[in-house]
Amino acid sequence: MKIAITGKGGVGKTTIAGLLARTFAADGSRVLAIDADPDANLASAVGFSEEERNSLQPFSRMKNLAKERTGADQNSVGLFVLNPKVDDLPDSHCIEHAGVRLLMMGTVEHGGSGCVCPEHTLLRSLMKHLLLDRDDVVIMDMEAGIEHLGRSTAEAVDVLIVVVEPGQRSLQTSTQIEMLAGEIGIKRIVYVASKVVSHDDLVFLKNALKDKDFLGFLSSSETIRTADKRGLCAFDIGGRFLSEIQGIKTSLTKL
Amino acid sequence: MKIAITGKGGVGKTTIAGLLARTFAADGSRVLAIDADPDANLASAVGFSEEERNSLQPFSRMKNLAKERTGADQNSVGLFVLNPKVDDLPDSHCIEHAGVRLLMMGTVEHGGSGCVCPEHTLLRSLMKHLLLDRDDVVIMDMEAGIEHLGRSTAEAVDVLIVVVEPGQRSLQTSTQIEMLAGEIGIKRIVYVASKVVSHDDLVFLKNALKDKDFLGFLSSSETIRTADKRGLCAFDIGGRFLSEIQGIKTSLTKL
Repeated sequence: MKIAITGKGGVGKTTIAGLLARTFAADGSRVLAIDADPDANLASAVGFSEEERNSLQPFSRMKNLAKERTGADQNSVGLFVLNPKVDDLPDSHCIEHAGVRLLMMGTVEHGGSGCVCPEHTLLRSLMKHLLLDRDDVVIMDMEAGIEHLGRSTAEAVDVLIVVVEPGQRSLQTSTQIEMLAGEIGIKRIVYVASKVVSHDDLVFLKNALKDKDFLGFLSSSETIRTADKRGLCAFDIGGRFLSEIQGIKTSLTKL
Repeated sequence: MKIAITGKGGVGKTTIAGLLARTFAADGSRVLAIDADPDANLASAVGFSEEERNSLQPFSRMKNLAKERTGADQNSVGLFVLNPKVDDLPDSHCIEHAGVRLLMMGTVEHGGSGCVCPEHTLLRSLMKHLLLDRDDVVIMDMEAGIEHLGRSTAEAVDVLIVVVEPGQRSLQTSTQIEMLAGEIGIKRIVYVASKVVSHDDLVFLKNALKDKDFLGFLSSSETIRTADKRGLCAFDIGGRFLSEIQGIKTSLTKL
């Protein structure tokens, strides 16, 4: 199953992506996690150490990769090949931890060096061309907001998870995401609630999302907040949120 | 003073931008607020009604504007003019509320329609060419993360406010922002803490940001959270956070 996780900035996309990746892996799936956010931090959410993270070469740091595969120079905004060769990328450009392989789109290396359009093109092709076995799972953590839907980065996923928190702003973003995702042909759009503080929050969100495919929720958690303060992986600490994530995973596998 | 507000997704950039804009306006400054996030919601944070928001034509919706001014077609990723004519945009493309004029870069109108590079080019030129009187303030709310620094959208600002919350991830983002902002020549980079729950949080952040220009903080606020749930403007409801924002404003004017 190819999954992309999207939503307004700060709703908890990366936390959920990391926890889901670890949960699928712990249950025996082969998992490829892809960090498609130039402001990347999926590696720490999955539990990679700083040393492992530093050993990972993101696409953007391999100066010739995007250029060689797409024909685009990273310092210019030119036209480029839309179907670059990508089959070898997961094998040659991954690090692995606790059964989760990780690929990174990478970041803006220098101020004024341009946008990350060529990297998005690589990722789009990668998602399209990856052949999965029955139990394989690919989880792509998207950048905040909606520009990736203009770039169609996630057009080949089977499921788009839209993460919302209790508030109008993340719901406004989700409405736009659903409209744009439909336009690029993403067939399955599902919702996960995050940062839920109270039963009222859950009622508020379920009410706002009635008629939608609602997979489950992640409560607001002091453990997750503390894990971030200390630079630790919440999955390794554990807590009630693990059963919430297990619930979301079960709903996903039933789709 | 030309200010841009940046930081990891969800740290509270838009809330702070909206509150600062209203505070400067209430104290007599002429304020131009610019929403430079394609996942835009500065208008509601400033307090514009839904009707007013719907009356605003963002750059991206004026099909010919970016094309006409930059020479780029929005549906292609081509080369385009780097110094488009922009002087008339604030007068012709604004709405106004409570002394705050608002411009919107606008959003991705259709899935697969491309990136928002041409709109960023327009904004970059606008920031460069705006001539301000002594008390005028321009506040630009950036998109989450760092891609705008690859595009140099904020290169002409006087001050870049980096918003951080108590956690490693927003601090990692801030480190990268500071590096990239330096490379595009932004001279003044200052910090504001957000979503501060406890004294510990504040100590944690001040410690992480020692040697940096720390302007002040905004406490985590149930009023702000409720305002978002109800689609209201926090400034109009009021609360302790208004004096925190006043403190940040005072520090800004002393820079």
